[in-house]
Amino acid sequence: MSGDLIQRIKLLEDELEKLRSQLKESAGGDMGRNSCSPPSESSDFMMSDGNTRSSKKKSGKERPFDFSSHPRRHVALKLAYLGWAYQGFAVQENTDNTVEARLFEALLKTRLIQDRQSSNYHRCGRTDKGVSAFSQVITIDLRSSQFCGGLGVTLPENLDLGTKSKASASELPYVKMLNRVLPQDIRILGWAAAEQGFSARFDCQSRTYRYYFPRGSLDVELMADAAKRYEGTHDFRNLCKMDVGNGVLQFERTILSASVRPLQPQQVSSAERYDLFVFEIKGLAFLYHQVRCMMAVLLLIGQKLEAPEIIDQLLDVEKNPRKPQYSMAVDYPLVLYDCHFDGLTWQQEAEEVSHVLSSLQRHWTQSAVKAHVLLGMIRGLEERGGVSSNHCCLVEGSRQKNYRPLLERPCCESLESRINHFVKRGRLEREEGENGDEMIHRGKKSKHSYNASSPSGSSQIPKETVEQKQED
Amino acid sequence: MSGDLIQRIKLLEDELEKLRSQLKESAGGDMGRNSCSPPSESSDFMMSDGNTRSSKKKSGKERPFDFSSHPRRHVALKLAYLGWAYQGFAVQENTDNTVEARLFEALLKTRLIQDRQSSNYHRCGRTDKGVSAFSQVITIDLRSSQFCGGLGVTLPENLDLGTKSKASASELPYVKMLNRVLPQDIRILGWAAAEQGFSARFDCQSRTYRYYFPRGSLDVELMADAAKRYEGTHDFRNLCKMDVGNGVLQFERTILSASVRPLQPQQVSSAERYDLFVFEIKGLAFLYHQVRCMMAVLLLIGQKLEAPEIIDQLLDVEKNPRKPQYSMAVDYPLVLYDCHFDGLTWQQEAEEVSHVLSSLQRHWTQSAVKAHVLLGMIRGLEERGGVSSNHCCLVEGSRQKNYRPLLERPCCESLESRINHFVKRGRLEREEGENGDEMIHRGKKSKHSYNASSPSGSSQIPKETVEQKQED
Repeated sequence: MSGDLIQRIKLLEDELEKLRSQLKESAGGDMGRNSCSPPSESSDFMMSDGNTRSSKKKSGKERPFDFSSHPRRHVALKLAYLGWAYQGFAVQENTDNTVEARLFEALLKTRLIQDRQSSNYHRCGRTDKGVSAFSQVITIDLRSSQFCGGLGVTLPENLDLGTKSKASASELPYVKMLNRVLPQDIRILGWAAAEQGFSARFDCQSRTYRYYFPRGSLDVELMADAAKRYEGTHDFRNLCKMDVGNGVLQFERTILSASVRPLQPQQVSSAERYDLFVFEIKGLAFLYHQVRCMMAVLLLIGQKLEAPEIIDQLLDVEKNPRKPQYSMAVDYPLVLYDCHFDGLTWQQEAEEVSHVLSSLQRHWTQSAVKAHVLLGMIRGLEERGGVSSNHCCLVEGSRQKNYRPLLERPCCESLESRINHFVKRGRLEREEGENGDEMIHRGKKSKHSYNASSPSGSSQIPKETVEQKQED
Repeated sequence: MSGDLIQRIKLLEDELEKLRSQLKESAGGDMGRNSCSPPSESSDFMMSDGNTRSSKKKSGKERPFDFSSHPRRHVALKLAYLGWAYQGFAVQENTDNTVEARLFEALLKTRLIQDRQSSNYHRCGRTDKGVSAFSQVITIDLRSSQFCGGLGVTLPENLDLGTKSKASASELPYVKMLNRVLPQDIRILGWAAAEQGFSARFDCQSRTYRYYFPRGSLDVELMADAAKRYEGTHDFRNLCKMDVGNGVLQFERTILSASVRPLQPQQVSSAERYDLFVFEIKGLAFLYHQVRCMMAVLLLIGQKLEAPEIIDQLLDVEKNPRKPQYSMAVDYPLVLYDCHFDGLTWQQEAEEVSHVLSSLQRHWTQSAVKAHVLLGMIRGLEERGGVSSNHCCLVEGSRQKNYRPLLERPCCESLESRINHFVKRGRLEREEGENGDEMIHRGKKSKHSYNASSPSGSSQIPKETVEQKQED
C-alpha cells in the first residue's frame, strides 16, 4: 500500500517538474532555445554545447577547487533577461525564483567564483518582478587564466615565476561558459575588464528605461508633450513609491531625456489603435517604481483624464507635498534598456551574440505571429460592428466608473510621517546637524549605516547614487 | 505513515491543478478575461456575469430536467477559439483537453442539450492541436423557449394549447448562456436558426484558412507567385497527410483562391525582416494537414530552396504519384478564419461581441507589447553587429545542413500500398464496380460505413464533402 502511494508520489513529482519547466518556458519564453521546434530538437545549438538543463539542479557536493591558486579578475558583465517569469532581479528571502539566484548558481557551477560573499559583487540596478533588462550590468571578481596579469587581474600569492612568465592565452571565455549553464531567458551579452574599485553600483553614468504601449485610444501627442515636462532635476516623491524604511529620504533626481515616440516612424498622426509607441527615459538614477508611476500619469494624460500640466503640479512638492493615490503602470512592458559606463571596453563574442539574436528572433516570431492571429480576429469583429472599449489595460487595478482627478484624491502618507514611524522603531535617528538643521540617518536597528540630509532646509543634498533602492 | 503519504499526494495534486490552470492561462491566453489585471480583479466583466470557473468542475449529480416538455430548435453556432492550449477541436480518446469537450460541458451545464448523442450535432471542420479558429460552425438541436414555434423549432408533444398560444418571448440567449460557462479562450460569436436537416458538415459552401508568418529572409514575391499555382481543382495527395484508414481515398480538391500578402499594405517591397504576411486560402473542403503542407512548400520556395514550379510538379500526380518526405509548417500560426454558409441569418448579441472584442484587445496588448520588448533587444543586438540566422523556424523538425530537393527525397508510401494495408486488415474492401472499375469502400471492420470511388479510372468522383477528415 505504501509502495503504491510512494509510486504515486513519484509520478506526481515528475509531472510537477515537467509542468514547472513548461510553465517557465511558456511564461518567460527563451532568449536561447529554439522555441518552434519539438522538444526532441537535437540541432538546438544552445543544447549541443552541453547540457543546459543540469544547471537547474543544485550540485550535490562541491568538488574541492583551489581558487587561491588562480588569478582573479575584476570584470563587468552585461546581462540581458526577460523578466516575465521571475520574481525580480535581486535575491529575495521568500523565493528562489530571481535572476540573481540563477546568476549565482551559474557562477558557482562554472567555478568562476568561490562564493557570493567573497566575490566583490555589485549590481547596477534592481529590476522588479516582471521587468526585463537589455543592459543590466554587474561587477564582480571572477577566476582568470591570466597568470601574466592584465587590466583588473590580481595574481595569486606565491606564484611560481615560471607560471607567471608563460605566454598568456586568451582570458577564460566568460560569456560562453556562463550562457551554457544559465537558463534560456538570462543571457550574458559581454564582459569587460575593469580596474579594481570600479563598481556597477557607483560608476554608472546613466540608465535608460523603455516602456512599450499601444496607441489604443490614447492621445499620444499630448503624452509626448507631457513627457518632456519630466526632464530636468526635480523632486519625484509624488512619482515613486517611497522607501523610507531603507533610508531613501531625498527624492531629487535628474532626468536627462524623456520622450514618447512611435516605433514605426510614419505613425504619429494616424488613427491606428494598434500602433506601438515607446516611452523612453534616461536618467542618472531612479527611485523605486519611478518609471511606472511616471508612465501611469502619462496614461491618464493620454486618456485626457488629466492635463499635461498635472506633471508640473506633481513635481511641485511644496504645493503638493503628499502623493495622490494612483496605481502604477503594469510591469511587463518595462525594460531597463541601457546602463551606461565610461571607461569600459566590452568584449563581445560574436558567436554568442548571434546565438542570442537567433533565439530572440525565434521567440519574437512566436509572439508576433500570435499577436497577429489575435489582431485578425479583432479586425474581423470590428468589421461586424464590434465596439472597442476605451479602457486602458496597462494600469493596475480596476477600471473606475467615475474618474477622480488626481489632485482631489486621498493622499499617501507624508514623508515626515513616514520618518517618524521609523524613528519610533529605531530604524532612523534624528540628530541636530551643524547648522541647526535636522539630520536623519540610519538608526542602530537599521540593516545598513547610511547618512542622509534632512528633507527640508538647506543642508547638502547627497549625490544621486545607486545606493538607494532602485527603480523597477 | 500512509496518512502522511496520502496527505502528500493531496498536496501534490492540488499543486498540479494550480499549475495546470496557470499553464493553460499562459499558453492559451484569453479571449474573455482581463489578462492585464491582477487575479483578484473584480471588475472583469466576464466574471461578473457569473462564475466562469465552475464550468471546469464536472457537475456532481444531474438534477432531473424534463427536456421533453421544452421545444427544441435546430441552430447553427459560430465559435471562435484560441487553439494554443488545446489538443485539437475534436474529442479524443486519450485526452480531455479538447475544444469539443469544453463545448459539450457547457451545453450540458446550461441544459441546452440532454446529451451529445441525441443532440444532432454536426461540426463544419476539425482543427488540429495548436490551430485556432475564428469561424468554426456547428449545428445542433438546443432547448428553445419558442413555444409558439419558429424556424427550426420542434414543439414538444402533448403541448397544452394555452402554452402554445402565449406571446413569444425572445429565444433563449444562447450566446450569453454559453459564454458565461465556457473557458475564456473559447467564445460563441453568434447563433442562427436553421431548417431541419441543415448541416454544418454538409452545407458548408467554403472554408478560408489564414497562416501568418514574418518575412524574415523569405522572398515573399516568389511565394505570392507560387501560391497562385494552388488555385483550381487539383489532386493534392502530395500536399496532405493521407488518411486512407479513415476512408479518404480521393484527393481532388478545389481551391477557390490562394494568396500571400502583407498585413500592412505598404510593405511588399521593403526589406524589413519583421513585417508580417499572411497566406490566405479559400477552398470548398480540405484534406488532413493540407494547408500546413502547402505552407511548408511555400516556405521552401521563399527560402529559394525550391522554385515555384515545384508546386506544379507536386500537383502532377501522374508524374509524381508518391509524396516526397517533408515536414509540414508548425501549428500555432494557422487559423480557420471563415466557414461560409448560405441561408443562415446570424444573430449577434452586440454586447457579447463587444466583450469578446475587448478581451481580445487585452490579450493582443500583452502579446504585442512582449513582441516589441523582444524586437527592441533584437534591434539593439543588430546594431552591435549581431548576425541573423536565415533559419526558418516555422517548419517542424531540425534544420538541414545540406538541402535536399523535394523531388530527390525518399517518398512516402503510395496510395495503392496504403489501400492494400487496410484491405488486409478488413478496414477497406475492394469490389468490382459497374464498369469493371475497382470500387473501394469501408470494410466490415471499419468504424463507419462509407463509399468511395476508385482512385484511378473514370468512375465518378464523389462530391467534396466534409465527411473526410478535415484539415487542421
